[in-house]
Amino acid sequence: MAGSGSDGGSGLGSRGGLGALLRVPVGERVDLAALSTSATPGGPAGKAAGVAAAARMAEPLAALQERLYAAGTAGDRRRLLLVLQGMDTSGKGGTVKHVIGPFNPSGCRVKAFKAPTAEEREHPFLWRVEQALPQPGEIGIFDRSHYEDVLIARVHGLAPRSVLDGRYAEINRFEQSLVDDGVTLVKVFLHIGYEEQRDRLLERLDNPEKHWKFNPGDIEERAAWPAYREAYELALERCSTDAAPWYVVPADRKWYRNWAVATLLREHLEAIDPQYPKGDFDVEECRAHLLAT
Amino acid sequence: MAGSGSDGGSGLGSRGGLGALLRVPVGERVDLAALSTSATPGGPAGKAAGVAAAARMAEPLAALQERLYAAGTAGDRRRLLLVLQGMDTSGKGGTVKHVIGPFNPSGCRVKAFKAPTAEEREHPFLWRVEQALPQPGEIGIFDRSHYEDVLIARVHGLAPRSVLDGRYAEINRFEQSLVDDGVTLVKVFLHIGYEEQRDRLLERLDNPEKHWKFNPGDIEERAAWPAYREAYELALERCSTDAAPWYVVPADRKWYRNWAVATLLREHLEAIDPQYPKGDFDVEECRAHLLAT
Repeated sequence: MAGSGSDGGSGLGSRGGLGALLRVPVGERVDLAALSTSATPGGPAGKAAGVAAAARMAEPLAALQERLYAAGTAGDRRRLLLVLQGMDTSGKGGTVKHVIGPFNPSGCRVKAFKAPTAEEREHPFLWRVEQALPQPGEIGIFDRSHYEDVLIARVHGLAPRSVLDGRYAEINRFEQSLVDDGVTLVKVFLHIGYEEQRDRLLERLDNPEKHWKFNPGDIEERAAWPAYREAYELALERCSTDAAPWYVVPADRKWYRNWAVATLLREHLEAIDPQYPKGDFDVEECRAHLLAT
Repeated sequence: MAGSGSDGGSGLGSRGGLGALLRVPVGERVDLAALSTSATPGGPAGKAAGVAAAARMAEPLAALQERLYAAGTAGDRRRLLLVLQGMDTSGKGGTVKHVIGPFNPSGCRVKAFKAPTAEEREHPFLWRVEQALPQPGEIGIFDRSHYEDVLIARVHGLAPRSVLDGRYAEINRFEQSLVDDGVTLVKVFLHIGYEEQRDRLLERLDNPEKHWKFNPGDIEERAAWPAYREAYELALERCSTDAAPWYVVPADRKWYRNWAVATLLREHLEAIDPQYPKGDFDVEECRAHLLAT
C-alpha cells in the first residue's frame, strides 16, 4: 500500500519509512481481500532477523519514551496513542505485551476496551475513550477502541444505520481535536487471514491453559467474517485522514507484526523528537547547597 | 526484622520466606535508624547473583500474573496491590520499571500519585486512591499512595493534627475493606540512607539528561529528613496490620531492592495461587464446529 504523498498530521507520509508503506491512502477504497496477511512489507528477511531487529529497537524506544515523558513534566503536551484493532486472535494482546515491553510502565496507559458497561452505554460512545486517553508525555495503548462502535456495532446492528453512518465523521472530528491537542495517533489494523484465525482458535482449544481465552461465541463471530471485513474496510476508508492515518499491518506472522508495530512507534516518536527539558535552576549552586547537607 | 508469627491476612507471616524477614511486626515500635539501608537480608550473595536471580524470576512471575488475570476473567475477584513508599530518590520509579518488566502490561495498573489536584483536594483523601485500584485479576502498582496523607501532610502540617491522627485508623479500615474484597496488599517502604540520597541527587545534577528529575525543592525536603523519618515510623507502626503488613526493604543497593520486591511479589502471588479457569464448553464439539468453518 503506497503512501498518500501528503505530509499529513504525522509528518511521516512524505518521508518514507514503514509508515509510508503501510499507510491507508486518504480517500481511497480499501480492499482487504487484496492485501496479503502473511506478507512482510519492508521487513527483515525472516523470523530470526525480525526478532533480532525488534530486540535492537528496545533501547532506542525506551530512550524516546523517557524523553517524551521528561518533556511532559515541563509542559510539553505531546503524547502518543497507539490504537490496535483486528479480528479476534489477530494478536492485539500479544502486540501490547511485546511492543510495550521496552517502555517504562509508569509512562504507559494501557486500556483494553470490552463490551460497554451499563454506565458506558448511558454516555455517548466517545465518552469512555476520553476517560482513557494518555496524558501529556505518556504513551497510550488501546486494545480495541472507539472503532468498535462502527465495527461490531455495524455487524450486529447495535445502533440504527443513520447513527452508525454519522459516527465516522464524529470519529474524524474527535481525532482531529486530539491531534490539535498534541496527540500523535498511530492506528494499526492487525490484518490476519481466515485460515490463520482458525489455527489460532484451534490452538486455544488444544491447550487447557488457553481455554480462558476461548469463547464458543468466537466461532459465531467468525461466521460474520465477511461482514466484519466490510465494516473494517469502511472504517479504514472513511477514517484514514491526514491527521490520523490508518496503517494495515499483515499479522499472520507474529515476528513481523511485532517488528512492524515497534517500527511504526519508533518512526512516530522520532517525528515527535521529544527533548529533555532544561533545568531552570543553577546547577553549581544546587551542588554546593547539597554538599553542605 | 522478624515476622510477627501471625498468619495474618497475607497468610505468609508464619510460612517464612522473605516476607517474614522484612515484615514490620504488628503493634511494635519502629526505629528506622536502627535498620540498615545497605544490608541484603535473605538476599543473594552479591550484585551479579542478585541480578541473575531476579532475571530467573521473570518467567514464574509472568506465569503467576497470567493465571491471576485468567482467573479474574472467570469471576475470581482476587488481585494484588503493590504500594511503594520511600524518601525522594529511594527508587520507587526504578522499582516499577524493573519489577513490572516481566508482567503483561494489559494486566497492570500503574499509578504515580503526585501533589493532589484541585479536584482531588475537594474529596476525602482516600477518594483518588479508590479511583486507581486494580480490578479483579489485575496487579496494581502505586508509586506513592494514600500514605502521603500521613507523611508529607504531617511533615508540612497540611492538615490539623487531630485530622492527621485520625487518618491511620481510617487507612487501616480502608485497607481491611480492600483485603475483604480480595485485594492482597504488598506495602513496601524503600529504605535508603541519608548519604545515599545525597549521592543520588548529585548524580541527577551531574547529568543534564537527568535534570528533569531534579527539583531544587528536593534539597529543602532533605532538610526535613528527621521529620520524614519520624512520620514514616509512625505510619509503619500504626498501619502494619495482620491484614496488610508493611515490609521494609533496604534500598541503597538497587540490585537487592529489585530482587527483594520481585521476591515479595512472587511469595504473595504464590500464596494467592490463582488457577486457570476451566472452560464451560465442550472442547470436541467446538473443535468440530470450528473445523467446519
